[in-house]
Amino acid sequence: MKSISKLLVANRGEIALRVMRTAKEMGIKTVAVYSEADRNALHVRYADEAVLLGPPPSNQSYLLADKIIEESLRLGVDAIHPGYGFLSENAEFSRKVREAGILFLGPKPDAISTMGDKLMAKQAVKSYDVPLVPGLDEAIEDVPAAKKLAEEIGYPVLIKAAAGGGGKGMRIVHDTKDFEEQMQLAVSEATSAFGDGSVFVEKYVDSPRHIEIQLIADQHGNVVHLFERECSVQRRHQKVVEEAPSAVLTPETRKAMGEAAVNVAKACNYEGAGTVEFIYDASGAFYFLEMNTRLQVEHPVSELITGVDLVREQIRIAEGHELSFKQEDLQIHGHSIEVRVYAEDPRENFVPDIGNLKVYQRPQGPGIRVDDGLEEGMDVPIYYDPMIAKLIVHAGDREQAMDRMIRAIDEYRIAGVKTTLPFCRFTLEHEAFRSGNFDTHFVQKHYEPQMLDRRDESGEKVAALLGAWLLQNQKESTSQSTAQSSVGNAWKRNRTM
Amino acid sequence: MKSISKLLVANRGEIALRVMRTAKEMGIKTVAVYSEADRNALHVRYADEAVLLGPPPSNQSYLLADKIIEESLRLGVDAIHPGYGFLSENAEFSRKVREAGILFLGPKPDAISTMGDKLMAKQAVKSYDVPLVPGLDEAIEDVPAAKKLAEEIGYPVLIKAAAGGGGKGMRIVHDTKDFEEQMQLAVSEATSAFGDGSVFVEKYVDSPRHIEIQLIADQHGNVVHLFERECSVQRRHQKVVEEAPSAVLTPETRKAMGEAAVNVAKACNYEGAGTVEFIYDASGAFYFLEMNTRLQVEHPVSELITGVDLVREQIRIAEGHELSFKQEDLQIHGHSIEVRVYAEDPRENFVPDIGNLKVYQRPQGPGIRVDDGLEEGMDVPIYYDPMIAKLIVHAGDREQAMDRMIRAIDEYRIAGVKTTLPFCRFTLEHEAFRSGNFDTHFVQKHYEPQMLDRRDESGEKVAALLGAWLLQNQKESTSQSTAQSSVGNAWKRNRTM
Repeated sequence: MKSISKLLVANRGEIALRVMRTAKEMGIKTVAVYSEADRNALHVRYADEAVLLGPPPSNQSYLLADKIIEESLRLGVDAIHPGYGFLSENAEFSRKVREAGILFLGPKPDAISTMGDKLMAKQAVKSYDVPLVPGLDEAIEDVPAAKKLAEEIGYPVLIKAAAGGGGKGMRIVHDTKDFEEQMQLAVSEATSAFGDGSVFVEKYVDSPRHIEIQLIADQHGNVVHLFERECSVQRRHQKVVEEAPSAVLTPETRKAMGEAAVNVAKACNYEGAGTVEFIYDASGAFYFLEMNTRLQVEHPVSELITGVDLVREQIRIAEGHELSFKQEDLQIHGHSIEVRVYAEDPRENFVPDIGNLKVYQRPQGPGIRVDDGLEEGMDVPIYYDPMIAKLIVHAGDREQAMDRMIRAIDEYRIAGVKTTLPFCRFTLEHEAFRSGNFDTHFVQKHYEPQMLDRRDESGEKVAALLGAWLLQNQKESTSQSTAQSSVGNAWKRNRTM
Repeated sequence: MKSISKLLVANRGEIALRVMRTAKEMGIKTVAVYSEADRNALHVRYADEAVLLGPPPSNQSYLLADKIIEESLRLGVDAIHPGYGFLSENAEFSRKVREAGILFLGPKPDAISTMGDKLMAKQAVKSYDVPLVPGLDEAIEDVPAAKKLAEEIGYPVLIKAAAGGGGKGMRIVHDTKDFEEQMQLAVSEATSAFGDGSVFVEKYVDSPRHIEIQLIADQHGNVVHLFERECSVQRRHQKVVEEAPSAVLTPETRKAMGEAAVNVAKACNYEGAGTVEFIYDASGAFYFLEMNTRLQVEHPVSELITGVDLVREQIRIAEGHELSFKQEDLQIHGHSIEVRVYAEDPRENFVPDIGNLKVYQRPQGPGIRVDDGLEEGMDVPIYYDPMIAKLIVHAGDREQAMDRMIRAIDEYRIAGVKTTLPFCRFTLEHEAFRSGNFDTHFVQKHYEPQMLDRRDESGEKVAALLGAWLLQNQKESTSQSTAQSSVGNAWKRNRTM
């Protein structure tokens, strides 16, 4: 059992801060890494020590595995937390860190590489009682053989690259007459994108929901799941709104899905925090999709409904402790929702809107958590994912959580860049979302930019001016209340958008 | 059943905001009241409508019961929430509001007046199986009779005014030879302070802890308690640090104390949210102290460990609904601590330090809630209680909650006024507090101003400068990291005070 006294977070932004906060609570010294673009970032200021890695883009800084390990050794770092993105699912990094005698707060290299390859992952879980989408057991390049099998599965089928991701090398085929052409296109796309033309052919799940299970495993063979997260509201395969629990899972399905996820972890000797993603169809059936071998962006909703600090558990597990709870100790308390706040313009096809956060005031009060890495006056850097913050609420039930989220969105004051908050509010108010009757096509089906209330734009300008106005007027003791109420109304116009 | 569509909050500051936030989540319009000193206050900006009551002090504004009711009628207000302080425990106000046909979010006048008088309260609960401190059943002015009874009770005894509060008319007597003189002093103090010289004589509880039970009662006779809050860390009878659950209650005592509190509520036909305070002694016995017939400052710790939104329940109860949960539905989840952040100088006998909040940045991240009514650039008004904020944490257990609170205190950036944060940190780090082995004498026993680390003062100055510095340097892309690290260190010096 090795106690961690100094932790390096090989990441930036909100997740670096989030990890350091728990480390600080545990009395662990923290080391930040940063690029030249992040010189003044909050994660750098928060850490006890900070190391400049190099200029942006990331392959000259945040992705420099060897340099990070070298600096860790120089500074006497005991453990490295990779966050998400960057090096977090890089098996080689996990291996090198361990070989350098440093604890890696994530799974062993084998688990990362097995789960990083769709084919290997499918093979690995096959004998572990994990439901798979009906389809071919192995990847294939032979078109006639694939066509024959597609007919056995039944149309519509999905053709997807074994090494794929992000929709590349993916085709939906509704009819046998189109199969050959579509498969040839998929194979050639996969070859050029990934250098590997092999594809899976499987049943295409209509009206799918994306439901995932958070799990955590120690080094002693204990694997526990922390129930599900519903992440069906997505835009271009990017999650936008996440919640726990899901509005549709029955206790029986929750239990079965949790057990399937635990089996996936066992199939790859998993260690640490991870997530098993499932497709859930309209009939209530679910199928293994993939495993993410890292802490995820949306982990706070699971923390809020279970009371577990996942980063604390990650640290304890790396130190060699057993999990501090058993499956039967966990219960779902209330409901939690997260929205991702991006510096993107939801009225203009979500184009990034980089700039200075002229006004930045977070919502406050009961049941609200904001995980972010910026503050008022800072620039949203152009080099990285334009996520400004994760806004997370917790309340007694789903309806209260939705109402709380709307209240929180209305309280959020951001001026200087356009954000996705109006889109998040649209989602939270939409009848399909509120009823729980939605799937991963929510955005395509329901969203048109003109549906957004336009009043928040004038509100942004008012917000930008209001701070200055209030301070200026703070000490004037005029007794007429006209000025107050007119500004108050402008403010409210935004708030009640 | 009357549905509330417009709620007036007859209060200011953090509690006004806290109430309005829940009202907003429930789709209820809000009306603020304010004094001329609070013209630009956040609670005024947050409300849908706002009414100027008059100038400070409060007897010309926040205490104008008739004017508040008049304005409520004019604006079509359905319900009034009194908050705490001001008119919240004024039986006459409860009566007048009800007579005006407006719902009062608090108990009926009789419950307020019964519990507002120590003697009446004691008489009321006598037949309800509520443990009382051994002593006289009735208030007394006759010195020889009192002395005889004091000897039966056994010294030390406490003499306290029946109509008292704030320590006035209160004497501890350790020996029979001092009794007469002390009682005469108590009677004359009580007479001049309250116009009523009657006193109680009771057993003086040594090494007492202040433990209170949160409860909530509907109009249908259902009374449920939300477990205890430990509020033993006090300074001049003012609570400073509150937590739930208490470090010392056994499950059996918790249950017994909860049942006793429910009985107190039944004894006065209580309705709404209220708190029953107990003295808990070193032997594990507890005695009824008094009932507070309002929502209390420290209510958030109970919300965090139970998941109940107390304001939501208050609103539903006033509308005529039954409680949305039963006693057996409630469980304690984790541990919560609150510290009160005052604009007072803990190094100079806690003298109020009013001024401008030049820097005001709240702590962030998992398990933190800040309820406040001010923001950066605002003045702390001189007319009211100098509380800036309530900082509340929630974590898996008591130790994690304490560590989280220290982390949160270190993240809090306030410059321009001195605050009690260093004192709160002192308490959270003190061995007596950490072990759970403390009582209401904690501050007298353990605190000396020179025990505070002085480093935070230079840190405050650095914090005040840092914001400007960072913004100025935001766009400079110098590659040497010297400047960063030197400011970083100054910042850290404060953080690790």
